[in-house]
Amino acid sequence: MKSEKFNVFWGFPVLSSDAISSVAYAGEEILWVLVPVLGLLSYGSMFYVALSIVFLMILVAFSYRQTIDAYPQGGGSYIVAKDNLGVIPGLIAGASLLIGYVLTVAVSMSAGTAAIVSAIPSLLPYKVPITFAFIFILTVGNLRGIRESAKAFGLPAYLFILVILVMIVVGIFKVKVMKYEPEPLYEIPTMVSDITLVLFLRAFSSGCTALTGIEAVSNGIPNFRSPSQTNAKRVLELMSLAMLVIFGGIAYLATLYHAVPNPDMTVVAQIAYQVFGGNALFYLVQVMTAIILIMASNTAFADLPLLLSIIARDGYAPRQFTKRGKRLGYSNGIIALGIISAILVILFKGDVHSLIPMYAVGVFISFMLSQAGMFMKWIRERSRGWFHKAAVNGLGTVITCVTAAIIGITKFTSGAWAVFVITPVLVYVMFSIKRHYNEVARQLSLSLDERPKEKIDFMKQKRYVIVPIDSVNKSFLKALNYARSISENIVIFHVSVDDAATDALLKKWREYNVGIPMVVKKSPYRSIRSPLLQFIESDEYGAGPKDTVTVVMPQLVINKWWANLLHNQTSLFIRTRLLTKRNIAIVTIPYLIFED
Amino acid sequence: MKSEKFNVFWGFPVLSSDAISSVAYAGEEILWVLVPVLGLLSYGSMFYVALSIVFLMILVAFSYRQTIDAYPQGGGSYIVAKDNLGVIPGLIAGASLLIGYVLTVAVSMSAGTAAIVSAIPSLLPYKVPITFAFIFILTVGNLRGIRESAKAFGLPAYLFILVILVMIVVGIFKVKVMKYEPEPLYEIPTMVSDITLVLFLRAFSSGCTALTGIEAVSNGIPNFRSPSQTNAKRVLELMSLAMLVIFGGIAYLATLYHAVPNPDMTVVAQIAYQVFGGNALFYLVQVMTAIILIMASNTAFADLPLLLSIIARDGYAPRQFTKRGKRLGYSNGIIALGIISAILVILFKGDVHSLIPMYAVGVFISFMLSQAGMFMKWIRERSRGWFHKAAVNGLGTVITCVTAAIIGITKFTSGAWAVFVITPVLVYVMFSIKRHYNEVARQLSLSLDERPKEKIDFMKQKRYVIVPIDSVNKSFLKALNYARSISENIVIFHVSVDDAATDALLKKWREYNVGIPMVVKKSPYRSIRSPLLQFIESDEYGAGPKDTVTVVMPQLVINKWWANLLHNQTSLFIRTRLLTKRNIAIVTIPYLIFED
Repeated sequence: MKSEKFNVFWGFPVLSSDAISSVAYAGEEILWVLVPVLGLLSYGSMFYVALSIVFLMILVAFSYRQTIDAYPQGGGSYIVAKDNLGVIPGLIAGASLLIGYVLTVAVSMSAGTAAIVSAIPSLLPYKVPITFAFIFILTVGNLRGIRESAKAFGLPAYLFILVILVMIVVGIFKVKVMKYEPEPLYEIPTMVSDITLVLFLRAFSSGCTALTGIEAVSNGIPNFRSPSQTNAKRVLELMSLAMLVIFGGIAYLATLYHAVPNPDMTVVAQIAYQVFGGNALFYLVQVMTAIILIMASNTAFADLPLLLSIIARDGYAPRQFTKRGKRLGYSNGIIALGIISAILVILFKGDVHSLIPMYAVGVFISFMLSQAGMFMKWIRERSRGWFHKAAVNGLGTVITCVTAAIIGITKFTSGAWAVFVITPVLVYVMFSIKRHYNEVARQLSLSLDERPKEKIDFMKQKRYVIVPIDSVNKSFLKALNYARSISENIVIFHVSVDDAATDALLKKWREYNVGIPMVVKKSPYRSIRSPLLQFIESDEYGAGPKDTVTVVMPQLVINKWWANLLHNQTSLFIRTRLLTKRNIAIVTIPYLIFED
Repeated sequence: MKSEKFNVFWGFPVLSSDAISSVAYAGEEILWVLVPVLGLLSYGSMFYVALSIVFLMILVAFSYRQTIDAYPQGGGSYIVAKDNLGVIPGLIAGASLLIGYVLTVAVSMSAGTAAIVSAIPSLLPYKVPITFAFIFILTVGNLRGIRESAKAFGLPAYLFILVILVMIVVGIFKVKVMKYEPEPLYEIPTMVSDITLVLFLRAFSSGCTALTGIEAVSNGIPNFRSPSQTNAKRVLELMSLAMLVIFGGIAYLATLYHAVPNPDMTVVAQIAYQVFGGNALFYLVQVMTAIILIMASNTAFADLPLLLSIIARDGYAPRQFTKRGKRLGYSNGIIALGIISAILVILFKGDVHSLIPMYAVGVFISFMLSQAGMFMKWIRERSRGWFHKAAVNGLGTVITCVTAAIIGITKFTSGAWAVFVITPVLVYVMFSIKRHYNEVARQLSLSLDERPKEKIDFMKQKRYVIVPIDSVNKSFLKALNYARSISENIVIFHVSVDDAATDALLKKWREYNVGIPMVVKKSPYRSIRSPLLQFIESDEYGAGPKDTVTVVMPQLVINKWWANLLHNQTSLFIRTRLLTKRNIAIVTIPYLIFED
């Protein structure tokens, strides 16, 4: 990544795509709440809802400026909360972030598909497969390292901003100057009630998705060219400005053109269609919207695996997530994200509107913990200007906490409950993993006193070796020859489940006449493993409880992967069971089969 | 099973449940075709459709009598077709049977749930979870051996027959004698067209599901007390009679009471409700219907694993299916059946009507091949009375072939196509498996000349041993001690992906001062396996291409199963890769961790 550090011009589009793209659906989400109740009156109320969200946006952006100053190495909510509030708040923030990233992919991909099918309605029945295909392509792409060409995404982002700005200007001009009177494309429901506080809050919660992604810049500071903090702050400012203008502009256009949310055509598509007509510019808006939404998912594909690897390095997630693939991506995290978001898309039938309630609440919980962490930092450090800084983050904490509560309550039954169930479960799992790793480390740790002091005289070792047999064939012979190379004290062991087969085996073995005894045990319950273990532990066998018994088993290895599933089940089961015994060593001798 | 052999009284209910239960939905399936087109006129046409199916039923039953005579060890379609027509027809019959059994479970379980929700409509939204739960219970039950208490299912089957007979008698009496005029529970659609040949054939195909399960007796002959063939024939006759009466009776009641098929209430439930009113008898009919349908699934749980084990013993299916569990059930077959049928239920949302088209076609293909096999047998053997017998089975072949064709054509687009896709795929897979097993057997087979002639002097063996290291801990030490017990020629091998960690490891290793050299290789691409393989093959290491290199690796074994997923990934990958090399032996040394 060294050569890929961002200046402001490239950092802005790459790190802002998540935040800016969310305006593609945030305005629509507000209308989903208002229009069915208020009808035509919605477009008046929308102004105030949008205004509240813009206010929230400015406040959050200001708070994050301070995080950029304080965490030049990148201050994700997990790190900020863990450093300043403790492990549990850190893990809660981490869990909310993980949920948020998964939903970023599910929501953005679904919204991207919605933009495409709005332009090409004949694709409507294929929404889920299209979204699925996008996720698949992005997963594979990230495994193969497309992240490094993220810069190539910069131009389309600028083009998106440009084309939306053009749409806003032309849209306002057409109505205000040319006195064009828009015809709504869909019927506006008749009003059934006036605006209430509850309705307003519900609309506000829905619109809060506009803020998702705003934290990306503060995570990404190390990716900036120096002076990285200054550049990051500059990008944050530009991003906030772009979000304000685009979100405000689209909200305003929606009121002018009376867009009606529905499952077939997005609000942005309705506006674009009315402003430009069904010409190339309309299609350009849709394509650019889809592209910026895919870019937004791509940032989640970069960020979630990184976050998981940080959590895993702290011991709270499986260590596999710290492993980088050959192309330096955290492969396991990328695959996990792809699979889980694809499942979500299928469960929710690729419908943005039903995914949103879960999305916003997780994001705001992580905002809140990050703000609270910063607040505690200033209070504790009391560095220069701490009071002013603490005031900004304190206000941020209160407002994001209130917002999270509003979203949690108003959206509880429509999906937010899931976040309140999954987050504690994730935190519990992360704790259990950490406790487990600690316990294993304790049991494995070795002090200098325990080092082997005397030399083992390997010539004097009594080596007990058992070779299980099922039939006399080449793979058995290879295992037997290895056994003969490490010991003279070999027993061939056969479990009989079928008398006729056993007799045939014994006869063949006598013909071979190698001079090694075969022990045969009957297994009335057809279990192969128990008789072997019983024999090893019995007095009949010479090995005492302190002796190590070596079991040599051949394993067929076939050059067709699927064919391996047709073999080796028995030896696999024996292996698994034997491994639970302390004094056993299992030797696996591969026997290669080539098939064409 | 010895003590569990059936006399006629118990064999009849246990082996007939599949066949008899299918009448619970066969009549309804006919009406699904007729009612939307013919409206009120359907009930007249239904008589002729039912009559044709009754005729088919008698013919098939007669043909199967001859199979019972000829195959006292049980003559499933797979065996009969394979013996008399050759391997490919045998495998086609086997594949169709497998598909049929899976659909028996999916259809019967869905129909059982339909019977229950017809009685308790508030359960309607939970159809899929209820069906899923039934399948789960039956799978677990069969794994634990409930099959052996199959006799306990006998009484409910008699009770089902009894209660349906009472319903038929009372239903006819009420209309014909008491001159009751039934009010249909649902609106009958207005007629849109008159009966056509195509419509008649489609209705006929739908009703053919009534015959599914009729072959069960001929498979189950060894389960009868002697004289087993006579007893089996007696049961077949009783079963055919019961099917005739119940199918005919329900079809007749449906015409009298104008039952209208719909997704909420089954036809049988509608009839029972009109005949008995909403009282206990209505609920009894529903409960008994559900129970006999669950019994029908249970026969599939007994038969499919058995069939799979026979196919596997012939080498056409993975050998795992020949393995019996501790309770003598073929566990893998049971689990496979449970999973696949559950997936089908979810895919088809537990809707009997949409599963049926696939069901009947597979069943009739296996009927046809079984009949054709019997026909060829008589022609070839020319034993006493062969001409008469060949005539019966020849007619059976023609009629079942025509029926299979009718079902295949009329139901092609509504699901039968899947059978025509899946069957060849299954046959191809079975062939590939057989070819594979043959090839492996050829490569493994050992002639007497190849037996080891000279004694290996194990003291003179040069043993090359490598112990990979990641950190100096107790599990590594255990592996190292084992290595020291089999060789003096040990190399400790470390792959460095992080310089600082490697320096710390080397420092610690020097402190331990065991006197065994450590080889360190850098891995720029973070792969652990390649450097190890390269080292083994390099000139730097002493082993030549003919020497066997032993790699000793510790494996953590933790008493909590999930915790094992958090470890051992690296050693697992190394293992997999090393096993593809001819001259390597892998020693696994378990290190046990106890956690509470």
